[in-house]
Amino acid sequence: MRATVIHAPRDVRSETRPDAAVVEPTDAVVRVLAACVCGSDLWPYRGESPVREPRPIGHEHVGVVAEVGRDVRAVRPGQVVVSPFTYSCGHCAHCLAGVQTSCVVGGGVNGCQAELVRVPMADGTLVAVDGYDAASPPPDDVLRDLLACSDVMGTGWHAARAAGVREGSSVVVVGDGAVGLCGVLAAREQGAGRIVAMSRHADRQALARAFGATDVVEERGEAGEQAVLGLTDGVGADAVLECVGTGQAMSTAFAVARPGATVGFVGVPHGVEVPVRQMFGRNVGLAGGVASVRAYLPTLLPKVLDGALRPGAVFDTELPLEQAPEAYRRMDARESVKVLLRP
Amino acid sequence: MRATVIHAPRDVRSETRPDAAVVEPTDAVVRVLAACVCGSDLWPYRGESPVREPRPIGHEHVGVVAEVGRDVRAVRPGQVVVSPFTYSCGHCAHCLAGVQTSCVVGGGVNGCQAELVRVPMADGTLVAVDGYDAASPPPDDVLRDLLACSDVMGTGWHAARAAGVREGSSVVVVGDGAVGLCGVLAAREQGAGRIVAMSRHADRQALARAFGATDVVEERGEAGEQAVLGLTDGVGADAVLECVGTGQAMSTAFAVARPGATVGFVGVPHGVEVPVRQMFGRNVGLAGGVASVRAYLPTLLPKVLDGALRPGAVFDTELPLEQAPEAYRRMDARESVKVLLRP
Repeated sequence: MRATVIHAPRDVRSETRPDAAVVEPTDAVVRVLAACVCGSDLWPYRGESPVREPRPIGHEHVGVVAEVGRDVRAVRPGQVVVSPFTYSCGHCAHCLAGVQTSCVVGGGVNGCQAELVRVPMADGTLVAVDGYDAASPPPDDVLRDLLACSDVMGTGWHAARAAGVREGSSVVVVGDGAVGLCGVLAAREQGAGRIVAMSRHADRQALARAFGATDVVEERGEAGEQAVLGLTDGVGADAVLECVGTGQAMSTAFAVARPGATVGFVGVPHGVEVPVRQMFGRNVGLAGGVASVRAYLPTLLPKVLDGALRPGAVFDTELPLEQAPEAYRRMDARESVKVLLRP
Repeated sequence: MRATVIHAPRDVRSETRPDAAVVEPTDAVVRVLAACVCGSDLWPYRGESPVREPRPIGHEHVGVVAEVGRDVRAVRPGQVVVSPFTYSCGHCAHCLAGVQTSCVVGGGVNGCQAELVRVPMADGTLVAVDGYDAASPPPDDVLRDLLACSDVMGTGWHAARAAGVREGSSVVVVGDGAVGLCGVLAAREQGAGRIVAMSRHADRQALARAFGATDVVEERGEAGEQAVLGLTDGVGADAVLECVGTGQAMSTAFAVARPGATVGFVGVPHGVEVPVRQMFGRNVGLAGGVASVRAYLPTLLPKVLDGALRPGAVFDTELPLEQAPEAYRRMDARESVKVLLRP
């Protein structure tokens, strides 16, 4: 099969590898319909996390089940499935509590920027998509929406849930990457009354508005914080989604949160110091983390299928799988918000 | 009137001062029935916060309204009232949202270890107690319960609320001071199924059990964390109340929280570094802060009056107001959990 392999920082290649196969009786092998490049794939690409040896890469995909191990019950060959970016057993205490990312035997799905991918613990991981199968796969627009659910839409949804977005809430979204944009969409779908997107880029601002942002703040730092406070009568927002992970983004998130609010954070923290005295004095909470996408798929997929949720617009670029190196280059250079790869 | 004045670290005196009086038309003057010494009163006493000049001290009291300014509508002379430790206007955005501690014109009640105390913004601050008045004041046991509501019970309640305690939750309470003990009581009243009190002192363990603790863990640090995990099948607790404010207490709180749980913190943070990467990876949230006791009094007082909530047992020592210096000495030496002062 053709697969994407990272050899070293800035050295991503499309290669021929042995076909993915069932190893454990609980595995499934999925024929990938579409995969994509994640912001977190850029860490090894940029040398921010180590690449000790060449390894397959990619953790977001939608596909058709090609083969299942003998113990798999929940999915069968021919079904169209969405995979979260982590696999999970489905029956440990953490899975049952909806925190599948903490599954005691789970781990990260890997190597799906390829024609085939092995998914461990298929029963606890994959979610079948009603209405489509190998013979009648989803049309392109639905495929894009489904693919977004494998990570960024679920992550944006988690940010909004963690921040406690409610009917009528005023919401600020810090970060205009694919996750932040999906956070805007999640906030809208969860009933937010006002959504302020903090974004400096015209194309992303337009997408944020299409996703439900009622206001856009271009400034960063203190000027951005003042702008948000100005929009909220000096009170601050009911809920804040932190979708970046830098110290400045977190600082802005806390500054624009009203007393009693929660910052829902899904940006992997890099150099973040949590302002605990400020949190204490103003009763601003911090919740979130790595999104348990598996827990949200049963909510998200029906919304996608009935058209209520259309996150696929975050894919502003589509390339054949063979051009994965170009996909990484474009994402790294911020020429694309998010690139879809099609085997 | 007689009043307690702090002159310098370890120099607290009972003195004669001018009677408290109505200054603003929204003020009330309350004749104190009972006041008490707070853990936070020990900061200036221990020199941990500065004492720049002699000043009256005390912020927890129950009393009878003696006089009100001309704009006060919600309380009238003769009523028995509980005062939160902060005053608040009652109608700004933060008060209306139940975060009266962030009231845009509010501040700290002060100087109530005295015969009389001036309470600003009486309408937004004081809560009248049904069934009692100047002619028939509450009996001693009820008085103690009411007094606990002016701070420690409201603060323990806040910790449990912030931690998301629900029917059947497994709860860990870190800290066995008056607030931690009230946290145990709050968790029980909010429906917790199992309550682990972390306490090394036999008398406080006994009180924790009387308040509803089902288990006591004596160890601290890693040994304590392992003990709690042992009690929860290695999963961790559904909700954790951090009622100390030190780095070690916070670290323990996060270590015993299950993935997806929230640490409710009400201990004023001193030297706390929030483990943000651990929070992210395990989806453990942090919420709480200075308790908006005013928001909880309408819930707490009926429970006290019908006997469902009896937090008064945290007062293990009672002294006449004149002996305030001895009260500070006892609290500082940890000879008393909490001292009630009676004018």
